[in-house]
Amino acid sequence: MSASFMHSLMNPQSIAIVGASNNPMKMGTMHALSIIKNGFKGKFYPIHPREKKVLGLKAYTNPEDLPEAPDLAIFVLPSRHLLPLFEAFGRKGTKYAIVITAGFKETGTDGADLEQQLQDIARRYGMRFIGPNCMGMVNREASLNTTVTPLVGKPGKLGLISQSGTYVAQTIVYLQKRGIHFSKAVSVGNEANVNIIDVLEYLGEDPHTTAVALYIETIRDPRRFLETARKITPQKPVIVQYVGGSEAGGRAGLSHTGAMAGKNYLYDGLFRQAGVIRVDTIEDLYAHGWALATQPPIRGNRIGIITNSGGPGSAIADTCEANGCTMPVFSQTLQAGIRPLMPPHAPCGNPVDLTFAMDMAVMTDTIADLVMKSGEVDGVVLHGAMSTGFMKAIFPNISYLLPDMTLEDILRQTDRDLSATARKPFENDIPMTVSSFFDRDDAYTLAYEDGEVPVLDAPEKAARAMGTLVRYKKIRDRTPYAHPQGMNPDPAAERIIDDALKKGQNALDEYHAKKLLACYGIPVPDERTANDLDSAVAAAADIGFPVVLKACDPEIAHKSDQQLVHLNITSADGAARAYQQIQQSAGRTIPVLVSQMINGGREILAGITWDKQFGHCVAFGVGGVLTEAINDITYRMAPVGQRDAQEMLTEIKSKKLLGHYRGMPPVDANQLSGLLVRLSQIPLLHPHIREIDINPLILSGSVPVAVDALVVLTQTD
Amino acid sequence: MSASFMHSLMNPQSIAIVGASNNPMKMGTMHALSIIKNGFKGKFYPIHPREKKVLGLKAYTNPEDLPEAPDLAIFVLPSRHLLPLFEAFGRKGTKYAIVITAGFKETGTDGADLEQQLQDIARRYGMRFIGPNCMGMVNREASLNTTVTPLVGKPGKLGLISQSGTYVAQTIVYLQKRGIHFSKAVSVGNEANVNIIDVLEYLGEDPHTTAVALYIETIRDPRRFLETARKITPQKPVIVQYVGGSEAGGRAGLSHTGAMAGKNYLYDGLFRQAGVIRVDTIEDLYAHGWALATQPPIRGNRIGIITNSGGPGSAIADTCEANGCTMPVFSQTLQAGIRPLMPPHAPCGNPVDLTFAMDMAVMTDTIADLVMKSGEVDGVVLHGAMSTGFMKAIFPNISYLLPDMTLEDILRQTDRDLSATARKPFENDIPMTVSSFFDRDDAYTLAYEDGEVPVLDAPEKAARAMGTLVRYKKIRDRTPYAHPQGMNPDPAAERIIDDALKKGQNALDEYHAKKLLACYGIPVPDERTANDLDSAVAAAADIGFPVVLKACDPEIAHKSDQQLVHLNITSADGAARAYQQIQQSAGRTIPVLVSQMINGGREILAGITWDKQFGHCVAFGVGGVLTEAINDITYRMAPVGQRDAQEMLTEIKSKKLLGHYRGMPPVDANQLSGLLVRLSQIPLLHPHIREIDINPLILSGSVPVAVDALVVLTQTD
Repeated sequence: MSASFMHSLMNPQSIAIVGASNNPMKMGTMHALSIIKNGFKGKFYPIHPREKKVLGLKAYTNPEDLPEAPDLAIFVLPSRHLLPLFEAFGRKGTKYAIVITAGFKETGTDGADLEQQLQDIARRYGMRFIGPNCMGMVNREASLNTTVTPLVGKPGKLGLISQSGTYVAQTIVYLQKRGIHFSKAVSVGNEANVNIIDVLEYLGEDPHTTAVALYIETIRDPRRFLETARKITPQKPVIVQYVGGSEAGGRAGLSHTGAMAGKNYLYDGLFRQAGVIRVDTIEDLYAHGWALATQPPIRGNRIGIITNSGGPGSAIADTCEANGCTMPVFSQTLQAGIRPLMPPHAPCGNPVDLTFAMDMAVMTDTIADLVMKSGEVDGVVLHGAMSTGFMKAIFPNISYLLPDMTLEDILRQTDRDLSATARKPFENDIPMTVSSFFDRDDAYTLAYEDGEVPVLDAPEKAARAMGTLVRYKKIRDRTPYAHPQGMNPDPAAERIIDDALKKGQNALDEYHAKKLLACYGIPVPDERTANDLDSAVAAAADIGFPVVLKACDPEIAHKSDQQLVHLNITSADGAARAYQQIQQSAGRTIPVLVSQMINGGREILAGITWDKQFGHCVAFGVGGVLTEAINDITYRMAPVGQRDAQEMLTEIKSKKLLGHYRGMPPVDANQLSGLLVRLSQIPLLHPHIREIDINPLILSGSVPVAVDALVVLTQTD
Repeated sequence: MSASFMHSLMNPQSIAIVGASNNPMKMGTMHALSIIKNGFKGKFYPIHPREKKVLGLKAYTNPEDLPEAPDLAIFVLPSRHLLPLFEAFGRKGTKYAIVITAGFKETGTDGADLEQQLQDIARRYGMRFIGPNCMGMVNREASLNTTVTPLVGKPGKLGLISQSGTYVAQTIVYLQKRGIHFSKAVSVGNEANVNIIDVLEYLGEDPHTTAVALYIETIRDPRRFLETARKITPQKPVIVQYVGGSEAGGRAGLSHTGAMAGKNYLYDGLFRQAGVIRVDTIEDLYAHGWALATQPPIRGNRIGIITNSGGPGSAIADTCEANGCTMPVFSQTLQAGIRPLMPPHAPCGNPVDLTFAMDMAVMTDTIADLVMKSGEVDGVVLHGAMSTGFMKAIFPNISYLLPDMTLEDILRQTDRDLSATARKPFENDIPMTVSSFFDRDDAYTLAYEDGEVPVLDAPEKAARAMGTLVRYKKIRDRTPYAHPQGMNPDPAAERIIDDALKKGQNALDEYHAKKLLACYGIPVPDERTANDLDSAVAAAADIGFPVVLKACDPEIAHKSDQQLVHLNITSADGAARAYQQIQQSAGRTIPVLVSQMINGGREILAGITWDKQFGHCVAFGVGGVLTEAINDITYRMAPVGQRDAQEMLTEIKSKKLLGHYRGMPPVDANQLSGLLVRLSQIPLLHPHIREIDINPLILSGSVPVAVDALVVLTQTD
C-alpha cells in the first residue's frame, strides 16, 4: 500500500488552520467554515495571532500552544509568513499539511526558492503536503471539505484529481446542478510534495472510488504515471483531460501551476499505453467520469436507442456510430413486443421512436425493460423522458383553462415515484445514459441523477458518454500488460556504436545503422558498401539485379532530394552509371551503398524519439515521402510489450494500409509488432543512441524491411 | 423577393385552428393556447365539430361558416380527417397553412399517398403550407407562437430552421435557461410544400434575423440550397448541424421525417462551397448561432483571454489555438497598464490571469476595456465573472458568521447594475464570449446574456464559439463567387465519347481518356498507343527515354497490381521487353500505351463523382497508392469557380504536400485550381460522362500532370 500516507492525509482526526479569522469574506475563513459546517467530526484548531476565538472556537496564537500535534495543518496565509509557521508544525509533530497559499514556483525564481525551502522543511520533519497554490481537498467518506465552497448532496463514486483548483472548488455548484458528486477530490496545486501520481495511486486503491478523473497540465514523471496507471486501469477506469499541448496553453499553464507544456502526441501515446481515456473538455471529464463511475460495465458495443423525438434519435445514432458503437436492427420478436406499445407507424427497429407520447412510463419502464432484457443490446441511450419540467413550462398557458388549479396541484397529479425507473440499468445490468433538455427541475432528470444514471443535456453528449463506456470496455479487455522479454546488448552493435563515437560521429552511416538494426532481428536488405566503381559493380552483381545505389555518408540527410539515390538498376552498366552520378552530385568521393531493391507499394516508418520529459519513445506510422504531410504517427514510451505494439498498428488513421490493400497481402502483424518491441529496447541497451528513424520501412509483401535507417548518437549516455 | 410568400405565411392577420378543444392536455389545445397567450394581435378562429366555444372564443363547425378566409390555417387533427378540412380552407380562399399532423410520408406508402393528395389540394388552390409532421413556427416580431411551448423572454436575433420539431418546441425551456432567443423559428417537418430552402431564403432577407441556424437531416435539392445559401453567407452567417451521415442515423431519419441519409463528405463539400458553417452538435448549433447573431463581426483571429483561474485559461488558449485563433503576447505597454490592477506575480501577457480575485469589476470592466481598446486583439474570451451565484453557494456557510443577515441582504449588498459591463464588446466593437460555471442564478451571467453576450458553461465552449466567429470572418472575406467562365464542348472530345458509346464501352480507354482531358487543357504526358512490338519501340524512341509502357484496355482496372505497368524504361531493349511482358501478363494481345515518364514525388488526385442526390461533384485530394488508406479528399458540387477550387487546395489535411516540400517547389496553385475548374465543367458539357478519375495527378515540379485517367460513361444522358 504505497499510497497509505495519502490515506492518512485524507483522513485526519484533528486539523489546525492558519489564516482563518472572523471575517467571512476572507479565503481562510471560507476554508475553515467548510470544515466546520460540512460535517467534520474531529478536533479543529484555528491559529490566530490576536483573536481569542475564531468562528466560535478557541483560537491558538502559535502551533506550540496546541494541546496536541494535529494530524493535518492547513495554511491560507501570505507566502512571506508561511515558512516559520510551517516549520513550527513540523516541530510540533504534525505529519500532513495542505498549503493553499499561492506565490511560489508559479511566480518565478523567488517563488521557486520559497517552494524549495518548503520542501526542505517537509523533508526535515518527514511531512507530506498538498500544494502550495491549491484549493484543498474533499473526502466525502470522512465528511471533510477543505475547499472554499460548501458541499451539498450525497457522496458520489467519482474521484477527482486536478492541477487546477477551479475544478475542485469553483465548479461545485455547476456539478451539484448536474447531479454529479465526488467520492474524493484533490487540488494538487504546484505538486511540491504530493503529486497527481500519489493521489492516483491512492484513488486507484480507494474502495469508495469507482472511477478516477484527472485534470492535467503536465505530468512531471511520465514513467511513474505509466506504471501506476497501467496497474489501475484494468480494474478501474481512469479518464483524463490534458491541456497544455498548445503554445499559448503552455504559456498559461506555466504561470499557473508552474507546469511545463509537453508534446500533445507524446501525451496521447502515454495515455493509450496506460489505458487512460483522454477527453478534450472539462465537461466530458466530469460527465464521462460520472458515467464510468456509476454504470455497470458494458459487455459489448451494441446500443439500443429509445427516444420520443426523431431529431435527437438520429443525432444519438450518428454520434454513437462515430464513437465505436453499433445500433443493431432489433429482431422481429423484440419489435413485435414493442410495437403494440407504440403509436401506429412509429418506428421500433432501433431507434425506437415513440414520437410525441404523453405516457412516459411506457418509454422509460416498459420499453426500456423489453430492450434491456432482449439480449440484443449492451447499452441503452434514452432521450426525452420528462414530466414536471414540461408541466412547469406549459403551465403559464394551460392555467388559463384551469383557473382553480395551482402549479403545485398539477405537479402533485403528475408526481409519481420514479426511483424504480432509475434502477432499470442496474437491475438489468445494462448501462444507460440519458439525454434530456430538462434539468433537475424535472422529476425524471432528478430521479435518474439521484439514482446514479447520468443525464446529459444534449443527445450527442449522452451518445458520447456511452462511447466512453465502450472505450473503457476495450481497455478492460486488453491482454494483461507483459514487460517485453529482456534482450541483451549485442557485442557487434556495441562495436558499431563505439567506433562511431570514437570517430566523433553524431550519427551512424546508413550501412552501419542497418547493421545495428539487423543485430536485433530487424529485416534489412542484402547490401554492401563500395568505395570505388569496380567494387560497386561487383557488389551489384553479387546481390543480384535489380539493385539500388545510394550515397552512404552520415553527413548527408534527405538523399533522395539530391539525386544521391538511384533505384531499380537492372544492369552492370546501370550500376556503373549510378555510381558515377552519385560521386558527381556529391561533389566529392564518397562511399556508396549497393543494396537489394525492395519492392512494395506500402511505405511505413518506425523509430525512436527522445524527449526531455518522456525520455525515449517509440514511433510508428505512415512513412515515405508523405510522412510530414500526412503526419499519421503514433507514439509509446519505450520499451513497449507485444500488446502495446499491436495496439499501435491498429490506431493509425491509415490502418487500412496494413490490411488486404489493392491486391497486396495484409502485413504480418506479429512480425511488425515484434519489430517495434525489439526496436523499443535498443536505446535502453545502448544509452548513446538518442534517436532511430527507419523510413521507409517497406512492406515487401507482408514483411516489413528497413530500407533506409538513421541512428542518431549522443556522446553522453 | 422570391421568399415573399414566406413573409405572408409568417405574418398572418387572422388564424384558424382545427384540432384545439377545451382539454388542456391535447396537443391542438396547447398550440392554440400559445397563439392566444403569447401576444398574437390578429383574429383567431377555432374550428370544432361540437363545441360552441373553445378557449373562450367562438368556435365554428366548418371553415365555410367563418366570417372571412383566414390568412393562415393550422391543422392538429388525425391525418385521416385532414384532407376534407384542408380542402375546405382552400375553397374558402385561405392561402397559407401549417399542418402539424403526423402520419404521412414518414410512415410508409399509405402516408406518402396521403401527402401527395395534400400537395395536390394545395396546388389546386394555390396554397403554401408548412409540414406535415411538424411543430409549427415562431415569429417573435409578430408575437406569434404556434408551437406547444409557451415563450418567455425577449425576442432574439437568431433565426432557426429545423427538420426536427423538437428543436423548435421541446428545447424552448432549455434555451430560455441559457438566455438564447430566436427572432423566428420554423419546424419544417416533411417539407411537402415549404422546404428549408424556402425558409432559408426568407430568413436570409429578414432584417430581424442576423444569423440563421439549420438543423438538417437531408437536403432534397442541394443545388438550390447551394445557390440560395451562397447569396446569403457573405452578408449573414448561416450555421448548420447535419445529421444522417451514419447508417443508423439515416435509418432514424428516414422514419422520422421521411428523410434520405446522404453522404457526409458531399454535405461537407456543399456546406463549404455555400459558405455555411457546419457544427456537430445541437448545443453548438444554438450557442454558436447565438454568438454569430449577437456579436460584432470579428476583424481578425487575435484573441485576448481574461480569466481569474489558470485551468480554464489554459483550456481556452488550447481550444482557441485548435480553432484557428492566435493568442498574441501583449505588448509591454499593455502589460504595464494591466499589471497594477493584478495581484503581484499574476500573469498579464495573455492570458491575463487575475488568479482568485474578489473585485470582479477590475476584470470585467477595467481590464476588459484595456484589452479591447489596445488594438492588439480582435476578440476576447472571458472566464470566471461571478457574483450572486457564488454568494448563494457560500451563504450556507458564511450565514453562520452573519446571523442577522439574510441571503437577500447579502445579495442586495453585492448587487450592482452590470448592464454597462455587458455593453463592453459593443462599445469597443470587439466580439466577446464568456465562460462561466454559474448559470442565470448569477448576476453576471444574467447581465451578459440579457445584454446579448453569449455565456457558455465551460471554457472550451466559449473558445470554440469564438473559433466559429473567426470561421465566419473567413467566409465573409472570401472573394465573391464567380461562376466559371463557360467552356464550349470540344468537337474532338465529343467524337471520342460518341465512338466509345457506339462501341458499347462503359468507359474510355486510358489513351482516349487523357486525349479528352487534354481537349480541356489538362496537362497529360506525351504518349502513343501501339498495337505491336515494333511500333511500341518506335514510339518510345520518338517520345524519348525514359518512358512508361502500360496495358491500354478499358476493361482492365488496377493495372499496377497486375504487372501491366512498366515504369522508367531507359532503352529500346527495355521497351521491347516490357511490351512482351504486358502481353504475357494480359494473356491475350492488347494495345499498349507508350508514355513519357513523369517524375515527381507527389501524387495527388482530381476527379468527378456522381451521386443520385448531388449530381456531379468534383473531388480533389491525396492520390497514388495511399488514396483509399488516407482518404484525404474534398468535394464540391460541379461546376466550381476559381475561388472554390482554391479553397479545395487549402482544406485537405495533407496540404503541406502542396507547398515547399522536401526540396520540391510549391505547386502552381493557379494552374491546379484552374485544372479543377475546367475538369468540373466537363461532365456538364458531356452528359454521357458519369465519372472521371485522374489518379495519380503527379506534380512534376510545380505542374500537375494527369498520369493515369479513367472516364466512366453512361449510355443515357
